[in-house]
Amino acid sequence: MSSKFELHPRLEADSRFVCALSLCQVRISLDANYPWFLLIPELSDIKELHHMSDEQQHMLTNESQILAKAIEICFGPDKLNIASLGNVVPQLHVHHIARFRDDKAWPAPVWGHSPAQSYDESDLADRIKQISDCILA
Amino acid sequence: MSSKFELHPRLEADSRFVCALSLCQVRISLDANYPWFLLIPELSDIKELHHMSDEQQHMLTNESQILAKAIEICFGPDKLNIASLGNVVPQLHVHHIARFRDDKAWPAPVWGHSPAQSYDESDLADRIKQISDCILA
Repeated sequence: MSSKFELHPRLEADSRFVCALSLCQVRISLDANYPWFLLIPELSDIKELHHMSDEQQHMLTNESQILAKAIEICFGPDKLNIASLGNVVPQLHVHHIARFRDDKAWPAPVWGHSPAQSYDESDLADRIKQISDCILA
Repeated sequence: MSSKFELHPRLEADSRFVCALSLCQVRISLDANYPWFLLIPELSDIKELHHMSDEQQHMLTNESQILAKAIEICFGPDKLNIASLGNVVPQLHVHHIARFRDDKAWPAPVWGHSPAQSYDESDLADRIKQISDCILA
């Protein structure tokens, strides 16, 4: 029997719940430097995309498309950065980051570039409502 | 009518052809610091994963799984890093990088970390044969 899904404490600390899809939960990174979202399949003990079943991989592809379209509509980025790294936090999570030519790290990847910037709580609540309305529309 | 696919000159210069799948060509990065491969859909004018058709996205998911399994078998990495960034080279390309706890950049992402290291030509040919045999097996 597979064990129950539990969110990794580091992901819990660094992001906030946005909404649940069929396979994944959508979360927002608490680094306000970028509109930065995570798709986290609610599966235990999975560290690599290709270790999911074919059906789960295709569900993730669909949910990534839903999130990417919502980010495009909400923020109109110059580029989306989508990545599954997991060198630090092994629980499978897929970054979806809206990038702009005038953002802090451009054109470098965001990881390790600039110290995280905190959200004002009301800005965070607004952003969560904005993206979840768009995802669930 | 859509224009013909042409590989971006920067991708042409920084990588070498490995093999063709149904949607993508597989290429190897010429940075010998890491076993580093690219999946490049042979489509013109596509910059984002979610701008492909549903069928193309699912083909890419399948081909990413094929490449990831081949990398796992050939190199036994501690972690795979899979990413579509495209801030510098806009043509859609998906990095597949075998990461090891003792590699130069670990646990940081590889981009911008260490100067690229050239392959010895025979080592490159061996690595291309190794991964293509595994992909096409």
